[in-house]
Formats: sequence, C-alpha cells, structure tokens
Amino acid sequence: MAQRFDVHIIGCGSALPTRKHLPSCQVVDVRDKLLLLDCGEGAQLAWRQTGLNWQRISHIFLTHAHGDHVFGLPGFLSTMGLLGRTAPLFIHGPSQLQTFVEFMKAHFLADMDYEIHFSAIDTTRHQVIFEDRSMEVWSLPLRHRLPCCGYLIKEKQGLPHIRREMIDFYGIPTWAINRIKKGADWTTAEGDTVPHSRLTTPPDPVRSYAYCSDTMPVPELAEQIRGINLLYHEATYADAEHELAERYGHSTARQAATVARDAEVQQLVLGHFSARYEDEDILLQEAKEVFENTILAYEGLQITL
Amino acid sequence: MAQRFDVHIIGCGSALPTRKHLPSCQVVDVRDKLLLLDCGEGAQLAWRQTGLNWQRISHIFLTHAHGDHVFGLPGFLSTMGLLGRTAPLFIHGPSQLQTFVEFMKAHFLADMDYEIHFSAIDTTRHQVIFEDRSMEVWSLPLRHRLPCCGYLIKEKQGLPHIRREMIDFYGIPTWAINRIKKGADWTTAEGDTVPHSRLTTPPDPVRSYAYCSDTMPVPELAEQIRGINLLYHEATYADAEHELAERYGHSTARQAATVARDAEVQQLVLGHFSARYEDEDILLQEAKEVFENTILAYEGLQITL
Repeated sequence: MAQRFDVHIIGCGSALPTRKHLPSCQVVDVRDKLLLLDCGEGAQLAWRQTGLNWQRISHIFLTHAHGDHVFGLPGFLSTMGLLGRTAPLFIHGPSQLQTFVEFMKAHFLADMDYEIHFSAIDTTRHQVIFEDRSMEVWSLPLRHRLPCCGYLIKEKQGLPHIRREMIDFYGIPTWAINRIKKGADWTTAEGDTVPHSRLTTPPDPVRSYAYCSDTMPVPELAEQIRGINLLYHEATYADAEHELAERYGHSTARQAATVARDAEVQQLVLGHFSARYEDEDILLQEAKEVFENTILAYEGLQITL
Repeated sequence: MAQRFDVHIIGCGSALPTRKHLPSCQVVDVRDKLLLLDCGEGAQLAWRQTGLNWQRISHIFLTHAHGDHVFGLPGFLSTMGLLGRTAPLFIHGPSQLQTFVEFMKAHFLADMDYEIHFSAIDTTRHQVIFEDRSMEVWSLPLRHRLPCCGYLIKEKQGLPHIRREMIDFYGIPTWAINRIKKGADWTTAEGDTVPHSRLTTPPDPVRSYAYCSDTMPVPELAEQIRGINLLYHEATYADAEHELAERYGHSTARQAATVARDAEVQQLVLGHFSARYEDEDILLQEAKEVFENTILAYEGLQITL
C-alpha cells in the first residue's frame, strides 16, 4: 500500500476576510510527517477540525511577509507551547520574517519549553532547502510585491518491492531480503546468480506537490515543477480583473492554468481567491479553458496524491 | 425610546483554542458608537457574522499582553486599512502592548492610510481614560500574572424628557424646548413661572457595563462597579480547579459570582472558559449558588442593556 501524501487546505482566501474563506494555510502530510505551509490568521482555530495532530509539525514554510500568510503564526506557536511541546520547531521563510518571529519569541513566547529556529531563504534561487529520508523541499522563486518563495515537496525514491513468489520459489531466507531490496542479486546453493531485477518490481513512482502563492505568472516555474502530481497556484482574479492582478503582483485563474499546462502537471488546484467573488465558478471555468484537470480549493479539502 | 447599549460577545474562550470558542473579544455599541474590547485571534474573521460595521470602531481597549487577547489585532488593523479606512484609530492598553502595536505598524501596516495612536494605561489606577458626549470609560485595576486592566463603560446622564402634554397646555413654542430640556423654567405670557420639573420627566437612568478579564478576584472592584447593569467577569475554572485559578491568576465561577454579589450588579455574564470544560454548566451552577442572575457567554451572544 502506498504511503500517505496528502494536502489539507486550511485556508485559501486572500487578504480580506469573508464568510467562506480563511487566509492562506495548508498542512501537507508526507508519510506521516506534517509540514505547515503558510499560517494565516485562524490556522490554529481550524486545527481541531482537521483530525491531524499538529504537534507533529516540525517544519513550517512561509512564502512571504504579508499578514494574510503569517498572522496565524503567533497563536500557533503559543498554543504549541501551552500544549507542552518540547520538540524544536523549524521555520523557513524570506529573511523579512525573521524579525517577526524573533519579536514574537521575545514578547509572547518567553516561557515556552521548545526552541524555534528560523532559516532565511534566498527567494531568488531554486534549491533544496530541507531534506530528510523521505522527502526534499525545494524553493521556487516567485514574483510578488516583496520577496516571495513557493515550495516544491518531492518524495524521495523508495526501495523496490520484493516479489514474494520469487522469494518462495528460490527459498530465500528473511535475512537476505533487505539486501535484495537495496539492490543485491541472490546466489543460489548451486552457485547460480538470480538478478535483482527478477526478484523485485520497481519502487512506487515519486510524488510531488508545489505550493505557489502569491505570485504573478513565472515562466521559469514550468521547468522547475515539470510533471508534478499537483500544483496549487494562486488565482486571485478572473480575466476581467487582469489589470488588478498585474498591479498587485497576482495571477488570474487563466494564467495559473497556463503555468499548469506548460509544466505538464497532473492536476491544478486554484486558491487565494479575491473576496470579490461570491462563488469562484468563473475562475474555474476560465482556468479549464486552458487546463482541464483543474479544481477549486476550499477549506477542509483533502487531496490524496 | 432608549438609545442603544449592546454588548456583543465575539469570543469568550481562554488561551487554548476549542471547537466552540474564540479567544477574548467583544464589541460594545453605546448609542451607535462601537468600542472593541480585546482582540483575540479570529476577531476580524467573525466580523462579518455580527452585522455591525466594524469600520465605525474608533477606540480599542486591550486588557493585557497575552496572546489570546491581542493576536487578532494585526489582522484587524490590516483589514481596516485594506477596506480604505482613513479615520484615526485609538488603542488603549498597558504599556507592554505599545511595542507590539508599533512593531506591527512598522512591519505590516506601513502603507495604510490611517493613523494609529496608542495610549498607555496605568493599570494600578481607577480613573477615566476616555470620554465623549455620551460615555466615560474607566480603568479597573485587575490582578493577573502581568499588568492587566479591566474597563467600565458608563453612559453619561442624558437630558430629561419633555412632557408633550404640558408643552401643549402652556402653548410653549418649539424654540424654547431645548432650553427647558437643559433645565430652564418657563414664564407664561401672564408672568407666571412654570417650574422645569413640571414640564419634564427625569432622564433615562444611566447604564453601565464592566469587562473584567483576566483576573483573580479583586476585592476593591466591588466599590468601583457598584450597582452596574452588567458585569462580564472571567470564570476560567470550576471550584475543583481553584488551585489552578490561583496559580495562573484566574478566577473560579464562584469567585466571579462573589464579586457580582458584593458589587450588587444587576446581571453577571461569565466568560474566558478553560478549554477543559466540554460544557460550562458546572460553572453556571457554581456561580448561581452565590449570585442567581448569572448567564454564560457564548460566541454571538448579544446583551441589550
């Protein structure tokens, strides 16, 4: 059975609050490791609705220093402490946010029992900024009114699967199985070599997710996220408001879809909707004219890769 | 018809978020002037639910520098600006909060078109900290883990009511009515003096509301809020947790009710509930043993004085 790779949408509105949307926040669950992407106001209030244990979040990735992406952070950090967290927490984001995190630590989080580490990200470079045994996180340079960075989360290649019937056929003992998984051949008692490829099937394909908000369309992005399973791209405006999109450093739904098409991603999910749209169907329709496999984000949406 | 004096409960939970409660926040509507009391996370998200025009808020009163009372402020201030506010905004609170407000102004609100003024309050004194034509706001020294201040909002005495039938009887012209309201007698054409008291009925009684959170029981409070219409007093814990209340500078529901009884207030509303109580009925019962006219706060509650 494939291991978990889920994206949970906590908030997909933009700066102005509405009855419908929370500001930007997502939790990504990669093989039971939870990453937090942005932390708009209300994130910790939605915490209880997700059924996830947010205490298991060790890494937070922030895109940029606008309130609708970070004003939930103080409450989130504070609640972590009140609930008795001791595990260190790592926050990644543009350097502008370091002052914000340090200020909150000094003034509101002084008696917390866990450490908060901030890593400033070079928002102009596409590079690995975090990795562990199961995944890599890459920065994605975005174009907004201030330094801004998207994130690409990419599973690492797993091991091949053992073909149980071949193991039985050759009577291979349990102690040898891990070696075979890691690439070894098998030599029978008669001295014959059974090649690794005959004993295994290929590993699961790696899965990948990119979170791109807030940004104008970035042509270079297509190469950096080519063929990924899922792209969340901001789509603040419809075609009719394309001048506003340009003025404020945002994208239209059609532009988001163009990025998805050019990057040949498998699926596109639109978010960061302007408060002006009572329902976002217009955004979906305009995007689908360019890239069919598009859906709208909403609070509570869970997408399994 | 009496003019408006309404208390709207936006949030009445304590530090830990629950499915049920938002952190502390209230809007008080005194004759169509709106005051904001505390601003916990999510306040601006609840904005749209109240049916009030929060842009009309010109004064914010903050009790103390704990996150569950102020983490909604950055989002609130930011949204005010995005909606085009130009009217200045006045924030009153303990001096510890000045740095917080200044930091937010500098880092997240730089391009807003309105001014934010902070007035530091001496939390050890009971005095008028704001007044206009229709009300006075008094500070109420509270006892918590850090400097903390409650607020007493008191209507000013209005003018007496004109007795329409006496005006008709004496044939008093319109131009004289305002003078009479303000205390003048009336002299008839025959030179007789009709005393002011015969032409008017007494003004409406002044109404008053006190907001006391977070605090241990403060004996001096009873004198300062004697006979007010409504007291919101924090009641974080039940009797069984009275040691926690003392350790963390909070009150039990019974202690809150004792303050209400000693101060001979008309009604008590309990709030700032610990997340440990699935339902707060135990708090209500324990309070009612001391002070019968007690109710529980909840999000969306509106109390008309």
